[in-house]
Order: sequence, then structure tokens, then C-alpha cells
Amino acid sequence: MKDDIVYKSLLYDFYGELLTKKQNSIIDLYYNHDLTLSEISENTDISRQGVYDTLKRAENALERYEKKLKLVERYNKHNKLIVEIDLKLEKILNSNPDSIEELRNKLIDIKNIISEIM
Amino acid sequence: MKDDIVYKSLLYDFYGELLTKKQNSIIDLYYNHDLTLSEISENTDISRQGVYDTLKRAENALERYEKKLKLVERYNKHNKLIVEIDLKLEKILNSNPDSIEELRNKLIDIKNIISEIM
Repeated sequence: MKDDIVYKSLLYDFYGELLTKKQNSIIDLYYNHDLTLSEISENTDISRQGVYDTLKRAENALERYEKKLKLVERYNKHNKLIVEIDLKLEKILNSNPDSIEELRNKLIDIKNIISEIM
Repeated sequence: MKDDIVYKSLLYDFYGELLTKKQNSIIDLYYNHDLTLSEISENTDISRQGVYDTLKRAENALERYEKKLKLVERYNKHNKLIVEIDLKLEKILNSNPDSIEELRNKLIDIKNIISEIM
């Protein structure tokens, strides 16, 4: 559930500008300002059902964009590799390598991860 | 000029799926298959002027998407930092560090670049 919200926020972060103004503002109130459907309804003078429908349409639009462009998927893959590099560096810094040679090998390992990204 | 083509290819790579089929195919023939406008015209039974107009419309559409979403800009920034990390690792691997301590400091430097990305 939490992951789902993170994913939906990412979709909104990437493609939100392609939504209509109304969709954009309702999805922003719902995801970023944590308002309930009823609260959004009160704030926007749109019926609760109308808010729900707009929200669903907006979510579907964001998912259609991702299905076509896969930019969030690409971003997540990229990010996972960077986190991996960061963890490996952390590990090296916390270890007491016996020799510079040992350290060199670990750095070559990191360079290989980078060439996967590029 | 070369940079411009790289940039336009990136725009196409990111947002090409949002173009119409006709725009997509013409831009693909022009950028990826290096055909001239006349060659595309012969291959598609569209007048040379029609090919030109479709190409311009497609390029404008791609630029409008980038103006809204700035995903290519984000990608380029990200990539520049990764190239920087890669170069620094390369430099470390080619150097003869005097001590593990000196190496550690260089690694901390790289970790700082990563925290800029994340």
C-alpha cells in the first residue's frame, strides 16, 4: 500500500504536467496534501462522486503515460543501481581493507556497476 | 549541430511514443535511419512538403513535452554526475595513492556526489 502511494506519487511527479488543470489540482490535494475525497469536494465545489471520478481518470491517464513511456521504470532501475554503488562505497569506508590492492578490486567492482547504467 | 541531433534523438527516445504513428515513423526514418526528406517522401507516398511539415510538427510536439516534463533535462543532469563519479574512480584506479587514508578521502568525495543525485 505504502509502495503503491510512492509509485503513484512518482507517476504524478513525472507526468503530472500532462494532466488537465482540474485533474492536476485534485490529484495534488489527494496525494500531496492528504485531503480526503469529502474535504476536496468541500474545497473545490465538486461533488464527492465528481472528485472520485476525476481522481480515477487522472490516475488512469498517468498509468497510460507510464505504459507508453516507461520513464518511471527507467528511473527506478537507475536509482537502484546508484543506491547499490552508494552502499558498496559505505561498506568500503567502514571496512579495514588489508591492502590497497584489495580496495582497488572493490572499486573496479563499482566501475562495472556504473558501466551497466551507462 | 551534432549536439542538437543527440538532443533531438533523446527527446524522441523519451517522448516518441506520444507522437502519432505517422509522426513517429517519419521522425524515425529521418533521425535513426538517416533518410533525406525526398527519400522519406518516396518511401511513404507523402509529398516532400508533407514530410517536412509532419517532421516539424513532430519536433515541436517533442519539445512541448520536454518543456512540460523536463525529463530529458533531469536525465542529462543525472548522467553528468554519474560520468563524474566514473571519471573519479578511473583516476583513483590509475593513481598510486600513498595511503589507504588518502584513498578513503577520495571515496568520501564520491559519496558526496552521490548524495547530490539522491
